[in-house]
Amino acid sequence: MTIELPHRARYPAGALAFPHRGLLGIAQLQTHEILFLLDEAEQWVALNRRPAKHSDQLAGLTIINAFFENSTRTLLSFEIAGKRLGADVVNMHAAQSSVKKGETLIDTAMTLNAMRADAIVIRHGSSGAVRLIADRVACPVLNAGDGQHEHPTQALLDALALRHALREAGRASSDGMVNGLVVTICGDIRHSRVARSNILCLQALGAVVRVCAPPALMPAEITQMGVEVFHHFDAALDGAEVVMMLRLQNERMDGQFIPSPREYRHLYGLTPERLARAAPGALVMHPGPMNRGVEIDSTVADLAGRSLITAQVEMGVAIRMACLEVLTRRARQVEGWA
Amino acid sequence: MTIELPHRARYPAGALAFPHRGLLGIAQLQTHEILFLLDEAEQWVALNRRPAKHSDQLAGLTIINAFFENSTRTLLSFEIAGKRLGADVVNMHAAQSSVKKGETLIDTAMTLNAMRADAIVIRHGSSGAVRLIADRVACPVLNAGDGQHEHPTQALLDALALRHALREAGRASSDGMVNGLVVTICGDIRHSRVARSNILCLQALGAVVRVCAPPALMPAEITQMGVEVFHHFDAALDGAEVVMMLRLQNERMDGQFIPSPREYRHLYGLTPERLARAAPGALVMHPGPMNRGVEIDSTVADLAGRSLITAQVEMGVAIRMACLEVLTRRARQVEGWA
Amino acid sequence: MTIELPHRARYPAGALAFPHRGLLGIAQLQTHEILFLLDEAEQWVALNRRPAKHSDQLAGLTIINAFFENSTRTLLSFEIAGKRLGADVVNMHAAQSSVKKGETLIDTAMTLNAMRADAIVIRHGSSGAVRLIADRVACPVLNAGDGQHEHPTQALLDALALRHALREAGRASSDGMVNGLVVTICGDIRHSRVARSNILCLQALGAVVRVCAPPALMPAEITQMGVEVFHHFDAALDGAEVVMMLRLQNERMDGQFIPSPREYRHLYGLTPERLARAAPGALVMHPGPMNRGVEIDSTVADLAGRSLITAQVEMGVAIRMACLEVLTRRARQVEGWA
Repeated sequence: MTIELPHRARYPAGALAFPHRGLLGIAQLQTHEILFLLDEAEQWVALNRRPAKHSDQLAGLTIINAFFENSTRTLLSFEIAGKRLGADVVNMHAAQSSVKKGETLIDTAMTLNAMRADAIVIRHGSSGAVRLIADRVACPVLNAGDGQHEHPTQALLDALALRHALREAGRASSDGMVNGLVVTICGDIRHSRVARSNILCLQALGAVVRVCAPPALMPAEITQMGVEVFHHFDAALDGAEVVMMLRLQNERMDGQFIPSPREYRHLYGLTPERLARAAPGALVMHPGPMNRGVEIDSTVADLAGRSLITAQVEMGVAIRMACLEVLTRRARQVEGWA
Repeated sequence: MTIELPHRARYPAGALAFPHRGLLGIAQLQTHEILFLLDEAEQWVALNRRPAKHSDQLAGLTIINAFFENSTRTLLSFEIAGKRLGADVVNMHAAQSSVKKGETLIDTAMTLNAMRADAIVIRHGSSGAVRLIADRVACPVLNAGDGQHEHPTQALLDALALRHALREAGRASSDGMVNGLVVTICGDIRHSRVARSNILCLQALGAVVRVCAPPALMPAEITQMGVEVFHHFDAALDGAEVVMMLRLQNERMDGQFIPSPREYRHLYGLTPERLARAAPGALVMHPGPMNRGVEIDSTVADLAGRSLITAQVEMGVAIRMACLEVLTRRARQVEGWA
Repeated sequence: MTIELPHRARYPAGALAFPHRGLLGIAQLQTHEILFLLDEAEQWVALNRRPAKHSDQLAGLTIINAFFENSTRTLLSFEIAGKRLGADVVNMHAAQSSVKKGETLIDTAMTLNAMRADAIVIRHGSSGAVRLIADRVACPVLNAGDGQHEHPTQALLDALALRHALREAGRASSDGMVNGLVVTICGDIRHSRVARSNILCLQALGAVVRVCAPPALMPAEITQMGVEVFHHFDAALDGAEVVMMLRLQNERMDGQFIPSPREYRHLYGLTPERLARAAPGALVMHPGPMNRGVEIDSTVADLAGRSLITAQVEMGVAIRMACLEVLTRRARQVEGWA
């Protein structure tokens, strides 16, 4: 397959295009590195739409998915990505893990490293746990979500889904940027690594990012991120071209943060009426799994041509394939990357 | 490998031999379609008996086993089937599933579909859940058991095991049918999807099906299925050429339906004495896992040349390979099926 | 890849080098058979250190990992071993197993056998359970730890890690033996299958084995194993060239066997001060996962050039590849083994 990189002129050739050992967060990435990963993912979007969706590029490599926090979708997405690239993929489930026996995270890292993993994908409930492991292993580490810190592949897949939607609408720029695009992220900003990674990624691509949350779910430090802060959803929606809803975690619904799911929907749920306050044709996103009828109504979630929710899932596999393929180039001694 | 289809004359060529998008139940199948699947499975029985038991026919395809209900045997069987066909196989375990987070079944279906699965195998505790998913995805869906509805691959593997046993006994007909064969199914008919699928499959192949259960475990509607209904096991066995015992689920043993496991064995257990009441050389079947000493005695379960129980397990992998291979022909653009 | 067998002169050619059907315990092995497996593992150590670490030797074979007892590390190690050899690998998790439904172990064995597994790897909480299964299946069975009986691959990987360390230190003998090497095993000797397999393996290779444990954790029959028995760790360490610490299982820390973890460390923990009592440059081993600060101090566990703990993990994958490859030679009709 010929690799097409639509915005090749925007980033350096060879390993300089992505000089990082792993993918710990969007915060470490330059704009052109984000563009590079998005461009690389395009070939995998195309492959995945073919009947035989398999490459042998990572044949002989071992990928370990070490999920200390359950996540069906993200694990499935990474597992499919690794297998479609021809790697030997194994999952380490936290529930059975020696970590439960009191093993330190560092020992787990040393173990996975000693088994000669070629890439380790980690999801962990504690912010920073992924970096702790990355510092101890010889191979690339991919952050699949750590605490309230980052979830970089989610932000990248969201950017890719957005790029595809804008392209279909004839609104994509030729340079891969989304300069001036107004994106409203609404929900539990305070506890959301998805929000954090998306703010960083969208801003890097030139978007104007608004965040909206009830006061109890808005972190004080948010202003330092250069976003516009809203507490009233209607105001946050005014002129928004993209509305990204966050999942309301069940553990927030117990009354401490939110009076009730019903009340939450009343104030912060994306209903058809509310979506009408956004810009005409505004796009709708949600990282899933959705609480239909709480943060988003079904009529909005399923709005053909406007909702990107299934596209986000599709792009997730492609983005993860891109990240795994790019990050293992050094080990595979790809020309220009060894 | 040359594909031998013993009863080729009985079904149309090409996609007309099996025009269904998925495999939701035996109820939707015509007799010649059942014969076709059984014939297709023969090549996989042969392959599985060779040292290197692997084909590349599904190379590049992604199969997702989505089991919302635990089942070691059926999951293993489908997983081995997919892997032996060369597919990329991933398992979605219900225990870790977002469904537990309140995601709707339809959203799960949309997610699996967006990941571009080429076949989805589903087991679910609710009757009809598999169809709900099948209606929402673009790829073939295989029912691996849904509630009290159907378990079609179990019925097909039972038919295949029966065919092999009759062939070995020199009693197989040349047309693949089992016309007039008397089969007694005994156990919890009321809650059993295995019974339901088997009644449909065996009748389609010409068998005379008797069902036997305590009154509390016999559904009122059973007479509409064209079976002979018995409450006394001895009478049901008289002249039976095949005795298929159902597993007594633990949750039925609590006294509500069954006085006690011991009492159950006394009335409905297949003991050597009772088996002697069936036709000479009658065959014994059980879908497993068995409660030895409850619905079946060990001396019967392990009766060489009469018990098909391990053959049933073996045929299970072959039948699932056949179903996966046939149902993905359209996507793989097999000649005559595209 | 050319197979180098460093001590080829020590064992017979062809299948006589390892005439066993499975690997149930070290107790059944002759010294030259142990040397043979260690030699065979060397090629896999080399392969695993290469970027593309994959062989097709077991292509087309089905390996089932049936773990009735949770173990992240050992399962991962066997799974990676099987996949790197090109086999179709499936895991049967005990938690979902029909065994939980009351199925007998023998029925589980018959099921795995009927699915035409080419090798079954079993971990089980009961001593002897693995043999019970091995007696019922047609394919090789590998013991991945059974009760308090044996854990043969652990002993083999420990011997391989030791060989590599001695070689690096220029202390390896040319015949592969470790004659006269003083090895002290300290910890819960009574309940440890790791200790048992290691005693047998190290003695077969010529080592002098000392065991050290609190009286409550030392089995009375230990003297029959030809080891030197100690209750005071300091004495057991005097002159020891290798110190192998055992994991103190959490369930032993409840006060019945051990006053407290702190007291245990005081009497039986490997601290830097205590290690100084061993022979100069003594090597440190631990099967993992470690309780740092209980049976071993971090400064000892991480002692560069002395601690073999990560090497043990690495050698584990190689040893398991060797065992799987050797034991399937008959089925694969390898010349001289069919």
